[in-house]
Amino acid sequence: MKKLKEVTGKIEKIDYSLAAKTQRRLDGLTKPQGSLGRLEELAKQIVEITRNENPPIKNKVIFTMAGDHGIVEEGVSAYPKEVTTQMVYNFINGGAGISVLARYVGARVVIVDMGVACDLEPHSDLVVKKVNYGTKNIVKGPAMTREEAIKSIENGIEVFEKEVKSGIDIVGTGDMGIGNTTPSSAIASVITGKPVEIMTGRGTGIDDNILSNKIELIKKAINVNKPDAKDGIDVLSKVGGFEIGGLAGVILGAASKRIPVVIDGFISGAAALIAYQLEPKIKDYMVAAHCSVERGHRIILNYLGLKPLLDFDLRLGEGTGAALGMSIIEAGIKILTQMATFQDAGVSEKAHTSASLPLSPRR
Amino acid sequence: MKKLKEVTGKIEKIDYSLAAKTQRRLDGLTKPQGSLGRLEELAKQIVEITRNENPPIKNKVIFTMAGDHGIVEEGVSAYPKEVTTQMVYNFINGGAGISVLARYVGARVVIVDMGVACDLEPHSDLVVKKVNYGTKNIVKGPAMTREEAIKSIENGIEVFEKEVKSGIDIVGTGDMGIGNTTPSSAIASVITGKPVEIMTGRGTGIDDNILSNKIELIKKAINVNKPDAKDGIDVLSKVGGFEIGGLAGVILGAASKRIPVVIDGFISGAAALIAYQLEPKIKDYMVAAHCSVERGHRIILNYLGLKPLLDFDLRLGEGTGAALGMSIIEAGIKILTQMATFQDAGVSEKAHTSASLPLSPRR
Repeated sequence: MKKLKEVTGKIEKIDYSLAAKTQRRLDGLTKPQGSLGRLEELAKQIVEITRNENPPIKNKVIFTMAGDHGIVEEGVSAYPKEVTTQMVYNFINGGAGISVLARYVGARVVIVDMGVACDLEPHSDLVVKKVNYGTKNIVKGPAMTREEAIKSIENGIEVFEKEVKSGIDIVGTGDMGIGNTTPSSAIASVITGKPVEIMTGRGTGIDDNILSNKIELIKKAINVNKPDAKDGIDVLSKVGGFEIGGLAGVILGAASKRIPVVIDGFISGAAALIAYQLEPKIKDYMVAAHCSVERGHRIILNYLGLKPLLDFDLRLGEGTGAALGMSIIEAGIKILTQMATFQDAGVSEKAHTSASLPLSPRR
Repeated sequence: MKKLKEVTGKIEKIDYSLAAKTQRRLDGLTKPQGSLGRLEELAKQIVEITRNENPPIKNKVIFTMAGDHGIVEEGVSAYPKEVTTQMVYNFINGGAGISVLARYVGARVVIVDMGVACDLEPHSDLVVKKVNYGTKNIVKGPAMTREEAIKSIENGIEVFEKEVKSGIDIVGTGDMGIGNTTPSSAIASVITGKPVEIMTGRGTGIDDNILSNKIELIKKAINVNKPDAKDGIDVLSKVGGFEIGGLAGVILGAASKRIPVVIDGFISGAAALIAYQLEPKIKDYMVAAHCSVERGHRIILNYLGLKPLLDFDLRLGEGTGAALGMSIIEAGIKILTQMATFQDAGVSEKAHTSASLPLSPRR
């Protein structure tokens, strides 16, 4: 708990002291004011987070954390539990969706075993921070002990703090865990106070029967465990998952170092809710990459006050949306730092204010 | 007219003969079926357009076409007319929004003078295809002659056909022309049949008074010129612009070579409408990069049946949205061509169908 307290204590409220200056700078670039919309907003947000007027977006790191879920024995997923392990190997081998998109956007993927149900073969690209061999079945009792919940968050912080030494300009979150939309719906329902029905979706692709069973199981899990919505650690321990705790740790760690965090989909959103319950100041450090097909995701984003960048019907997780989001944020920073000003380019400003500027090209 | 007829005659209807095969291939990749949503749809569309099962998205070319507009003398824009010329020099010098974003996504920008009001200094990066020194004031008569309208489209085709020899995998459209939201609103209103009021926006940022004046001027221009909505060339000549005609030519040229076209914002949308009136089969060759702040844009996209990729409140033009759109399409192609299959990666498929596959990693 010491580590967690230390990190949350370091998270500063963003004071937006550079807002007016950055706006003036953007308005001096050769385009109508505000005409690059969301790209300009992103650039401003990154300047405020990093307190750097020319923030580099060079070292992009996606933390893709894996864990297994006891609830899978109730038949909540379309895929067998072994897939969690198999997909971790797929990440290592570079064949997964996140492997492809991270390569494409120039991001590094840190693959973390937070609580996969078996022992994975050691590999230089695999970080093992296993808290336990999968969570317990949440309809029968808590997913994990309170100590394990704290440990999962602190393990996430430790992974982040080790990686930040190699340089990180922007963080992306990603998850892998067969069955993990179930704990995510439970977390989101408890923290936002919205009914389980509207917070529960089809995950990897279950049919109506399995969906209604999933809803009943989540209600039962909440009823059996009675998580305290105000206590993020209690919610995580009762109905959460190890990869969700780990991602909450990454988010908190990044915010403590004033590094922006791109939140991926529904599971990352649940992790963001846990982190938010522990320290609400993290909100301004986050950018939501996209709004998932998973129906509860929009409710999570509204609760956190995040406006998603993309609406692409994604529902893969792994950090795939975060990879795309990072590349859009980088585009916004390029606009801020590379565009010519009206003055430099000899372009007349609005309302004829400088129509007397030279027309000749500047090379 | 010969060139134009030749090109439209070559545009083939997309038969979607590869649809089922591409879908099976996407479904065999290590992810739940359809879980990469729009990225998968884009990949399928590019395969169908190019008839290439592994389409390269290497040579990305954005055509940014410039022209001036006689209507500017009525005070429809927040910027003076000289800015068109100044911005062309800014493109050449690499300081504009499109310069920055094209560099970022690895696209080449072909800068074309389609009808700027003055003679630009020659430059190796500037293609001069000037039809005339700006259009005439459309409230007083047609923007250009019918011959000029045909020439503007054919010049666009010629620019495209010259560039395609250096290799083009995907085309983006972009525009520069102070005052050009006015002819674009006129074109869109005539072709879609929607009222001028809902088709006219604030362009680079005009106030309420100038906006209501702009609406009246567009109504007057349509009334004075009586463009024939069914005849794309008539619409272009009566209320269009040289850069708009040039972009229509680029779109038609690309479709005739089965090369996908990423449509930028409102002005590119008006060009797409002109191209569509000339040959409706172009529709399936286009991807809409984004939905602009300019209020008529969504109506154009609906008319063309295009679902925009991004909703970023962009309203700069130049091809900036197209640059971002291209990079997302490239991401979709990377998914199609680089992800591992369930079989290759030894990952179990849905519903335990291959749970007996080995768990050991493959390297």
